[in-house]
Amino acid sequence: MKWEEIDEIIKPLMFDARKKVLQSFSQQLDVQTKSNKNDLVTNMDKAIEKFYIDNLHAKFPKAKILGEESQKDKFEDSTDLFFVIDPIDGTMNFVKQKAHFASMIAVFDHQKPVLGYIMDMTAGELYWGGPSVGVYRNFEKLQAPSNLSLADGLIGMGLPMLLNPNSGMADVARQSSGVRMYGSAGIEFIHVLNGETLGYVSKLHAWDYAAGKILAETLDLTVEAIDGTDINVLSSKVVLVATKNAQKQINEIINA
Amino acid sequence: MKWEEIDEIIKPLMFDARKKVLQSFSQQLDVQTKSNKNDLVTNMDKAIEKFYIDNLHAKFPKAKILGEESQKDKFEDSTDLFFVIDPIDGTMNFVKQKAHFASMIAVFDHQKPVLGYIMDMTAGELYWGGPSVGVYRNFEKLQAPSNLSLADGLIGMGLPMLLNPNSGMADVARQSSGVRMYGSAGIEFIHVLNGETLGYVSKLHAWDYAAGKILAETLDLTVEAIDGTDINVLSSKVVLVATKNAQKQINEIINA
Repeated sequence: MKWEEIDEIIKPLMFDARKKVLQSFSQQLDVQTKSNKNDLVTNMDKAIEKFYIDNLHAKFPKAKILGEESQKDKFEDSTDLFFVIDPIDGTMNFVKQKAHFASMIAVFDHQKPVLGYIMDMTAGELYWGGPSVGVYRNFEKLQAPSNLSLADGLIGMGLPMLLNPNSGMADVARQSSGVRMYGSAGIEFIHVLNGETLGYVSKLHAWDYAAGKILAETLDLTVEAIDGTDINVLSSKVVLVATKNAQKQINEIINA
Repeated sequence: MKWEEIDEIIKPLMFDARKKVLQSFSQQLDVQTKSNKNDLVTNMDKAIEKFYIDNLHAKFPKAKILGEESQKDKFEDSTDLFFVIDPIDGTMNFVKQKAHFASMIAVFDHQKPVLGYIMDMTAGELYWGGPSVGVYRNFEKLQAPSNLSLADGLIGMGLPMLLNPNSGMADVARQSSGVRMYGSAGIEFIHVLNGETLGYVSKLHAWDYAAGKILAETLDLTVEAIDGTDINVLSSKVVLVATKNAQKQINEIINA
């Protein structure tokens, strides 16, 4: 299937999802916890995931789907289109800030990356693209970020990574220009794509990084599991996205 | 002097400063380091500080001024108007991201707080006000944020605080809903004023917190030096701004 045919279905879906989410700001949210007190899900996460799944199934009946909140098809079994969905990434920010959260869809065909989509939901900026088309912010084509060294750029981190004394991340932080912590993998990936941070490291689920990986690799950034394992199987990993120079330096620090 | 007379001078100055800074995005910046490799100053920091000082001196000839980059009048000697200026707060973000930085002015009269101004420079949102007038985002009056407990909100932190094992901040982080790190005291104060974070803690200079303290206290938030010393003398301190409930809990944790 041509990427254009998939793209013309997904873009309107994501802008419709954005409209629904912005409208929900005036309503009372139903907030529940999942694995721990800071792992939240709301009625809107579920509603947006259902909206994506229903529409994708209608348009692509043979496709399989992995969604954060519900459907858990297996990537390994996929022999056609496969979608990875994070309806609201940064649910804590969505609940507490009504800002700084994203919605993400990744598209694979025969297990090959085709398209990634990250929508900054309050800004209304859609980062999208893939290996066949490049990466765009709405209608503007992005250039690959400069291949910065660790000392010359900011790095995004998840809090548990930074607080884990065995992670080496405190040393990575000290050797960088500074740490930023935005509370949403999607928003962090956007900063890396824009060259505003030179990387981002955090423990992530497949739906947190699937779209960002496709976009980042299209812009010559590296994306890897820092335990050295393969991340194509879309499992939970400590994932590092970074410029190639910073990626080398970070690995030297954490393996020292 | 009536606050309105001061306000009608300062607001246009800050919007003019914003225009100059946005125009500078298309020019090459001259970036230098100060106390360490991540403590930056640019030609624009200096130009905006000079722009503020020249205009404030012209309008208020008897006023004294403390600026981050140049003029260092002493607060203790002030017997008339006293201005505290941070032309560009978050210079690293200004340089690396062209976003997430602020410009700030605090106004004292006979050493009493009168007005605070924090401009989110890329958003063009001016947070301003003081004890006589309340706090506004541009033309919209802000309500005091909910008096959240630590477990119910996000907290902003400076990296050195979080990495210092004697600070107790790792425990504060774990008991909160999560940590955010935006890299600019002004931007962090804005999040607290909006109720998007319940607090912010960092080692700060007078120009980093003078305006934010006036605005935060006007909205019933607490601002204190966490070593228990007085912060009215406008020296460098580890400063905590927080809801009253969170402030109590954070002090219990760091004194435990």
